[in-house]
Amino acid sequence: MKKFLNDPANLVSELLEGFALAHADKVRLTGSRLVARARVKPADRVALVTLGGSGHEPALSGYVGEGMLDVSVPGEIFAAPGPPRVLEALRLANRPAGVLLVVLNHEGDVLSSNVALELARKEGLKVRSVLTREDISAGTRADPSDRRGLVGCLLVYKMAGAAAEQGRSLEECLAVAEGVERDMATLAVALSPATHPATGQPISALAEDEMVIGMGQHGEAGGGSRRVLSADETADVMVEALVQDLDLTSGEEALALVNGVGATTLMEQYIVLRRVRRNLEERGIKLARSLAGSFLTVQEMGGFQLCLCRMNRERLALWDAPCHTPALSIR
Amino acid sequence: MKKFLNDPANLVSELLEGFALAHADKVRLTGSRLVARARVKPADRVALVTLGGSGHEPALSGYVGEGMLDVSVPGEIFAAPGPPRVLEALRLANRPAGVLLVVLNHEGDVLSSNVALELARKEGLKVRSVLTREDISAGTRADPSDRRGLVGCLLVYKMAGAAAEQGRSLEECLAVAEGVERDMATLAVALSPATHPATGQPISALAEDEMVIGMGQHGEAGGGSRRVLSADETADVMVEALVQDLDLTSGEEALALVNGVGATTLMEQYIVLRRVRRNLEERGIKLARSLAGSFLTVQEMGGFQLCLCRMNRERLALWDAPCHTPALSIR
Repeated sequence: MKKFLNDPANLVSELLEGFALAHADKVRLTGSRLVARARVKPADRVALVTLGGSGHEPALSGYVGEGMLDVSVPGEIFAAPGPPRVLEALRLANRPAGVLLVVLNHEGDVLSSNVALELARKEGLKVRSVLTREDISAGTRADPSDRRGLVGCLLVYKMAGAAAEQGRSLEECLAVAEGVERDMATLAVALSPATHPATGQPISALAEDEMVIGMGQHGEAGGGSRRVLSADETADVMVEALVQDLDLTSGEEALALVNGVGATTLMEQYIVLRRVRRNLEERGIKLARSLAGSFLTVQEMGGFQLCLCRMNRERLALWDAPCHTPALSIR
Repeated sequence: MKKFLNDPANLVSELLEGFALAHADKVRLTGSRLVARARVKPADRVALVTLGGSGHEPALSGYVGEGMLDVSVPGEIFAAPGPPRVLEALRLANRPAGVLLVVLNHEGDVLSSNVALELARKEGLKVRSVLTREDISAGTRADPSDRRGLVGCLLVYKMAGAAAEQGRSLEECLAVAEGVERDMATLAVALSPATHPATGQPISALAEDEMVIGMGQHGEAGGGSRRVLSADETADVMVEALVQDLDLTSGEEALALVNGVGATTLMEQYIVLRRVRRNLEERGIKLARSLAGSFLTVQEMGGFQLCLCRMNRERLALWDAPCHTPALSIR
């Protein structure tokens, strides 16, 4: 493994120090390495909190800021933070309007969140939570318990965050989050492996002529290995699977997010996005909004995640509302 | 080479189609594949134009938009656009206030620019140009002719772009650009190689235990190969060289830009940036502004460029002025 690192024991604290420095106008570190907004939102607005392992930069703390998250709880590399720090974040975000906790469906994150939510409620905190599990390679809509939370979380942060900023109630923000979660689907494709930055161990293996559609963001299996396809062929396979899962039909509108997971260039992401639009248009589905970028990474892995979300007038307005965070700016 | 590509002959047109789609609110494609702002700036404001090879996404077209560039001329992969398209861009940007052409010091870009500038002046266009050559590994301040233009171009786009937006004259914008160019310095370090996406050929070679400080953005040699250093050691070597070149001294202020060139993670970039600040502070130099991100890439290469720029009150105001482009947002 060739990376620019120091003592692995200090990896997360060092990266957070640099992160807070690079984005000092938007975020600050507080308490037990929590990432909070530089300027606290008024208490009559619902706060959004999330948690997740480090090593996926800019996710998840890169979405703390105006219009999206209020507090993020970064764990160690690829590891969920423990319940005490999640509880600390809920207390920090606590306010009369309430707190919405967004949890990505990974075992450790769910365990920590459940313990923290129970303790928070015992303390009288007004908290609700939503679980994102939109990885269609790891389960069906009928049995989604193993579906992982991938890059789609940022659509939940964005649209529920906009609802919160507008002063909607906790129940209303929860309804937005649950609606987006239900109407999004993600599939990941891997071309080349990544290493764990603290241990130096590979977290996935891929042969020279192999690609895997359906790999989780920690290298979990789930999809099928196959020969490497072209950009257009790959996009077509993925769009077909996502459209089927979402039951998107002619006349509907969608948002597409192409998320590079590390070594896959923005150049490739743009080429894929172009094909996604063409494919959707051939189906009569309008690509209403689109993004390409490295929003949630897996170290130096080659590959991308494609997330589609069914859009409607309300969601378009929430999507277009301004946000200003380290990793996403809309105005 | 494992990448998501189609026919290499269509690579640039496909990536531009996706780029324009992803950023339709900010840019549009026009003429012979020129990238222009979605909304044209008033004619009483100086326009900024740049040119350069593709394959470095988001550079250079990612800086077209409010507060930065007006038009960019993307070439083929790693290749300068020819004079006719540069001339077309100058005509497109032409206005009473004048046009400032920012050229990165690479042979093809300089040749195309010189021809296009001569033809534009014969047509009566009011154009000036500035050459960025801040790669300290490829020449001295006394003999900078071989110094390449690296990621520092974006500091010129940002600060001269802000001056243009404020209504300053062409000569004043040129003076800002020349001042920033003179007061910035960049050094690149490479850890792992990249391939040319159209040919599949490696553009650089690096042994398993080797790092190269001073590699150009197309794999050009120039620096020395050495054993791999830690993040902090690497940052220290690079800061020392840049501070020497710039003659930065205690009491001065600087901007630092850590630019990941591909496979080097944002995590690593944050760790490096943290050390850059500490090193500068030990010298009594204040880190007034800082950025980390993949602003100008070299495909899947592992490594980063560190750019330092001497700041002062005027430059800080120009830096902090709003911009809204595909790859950089400040408000």
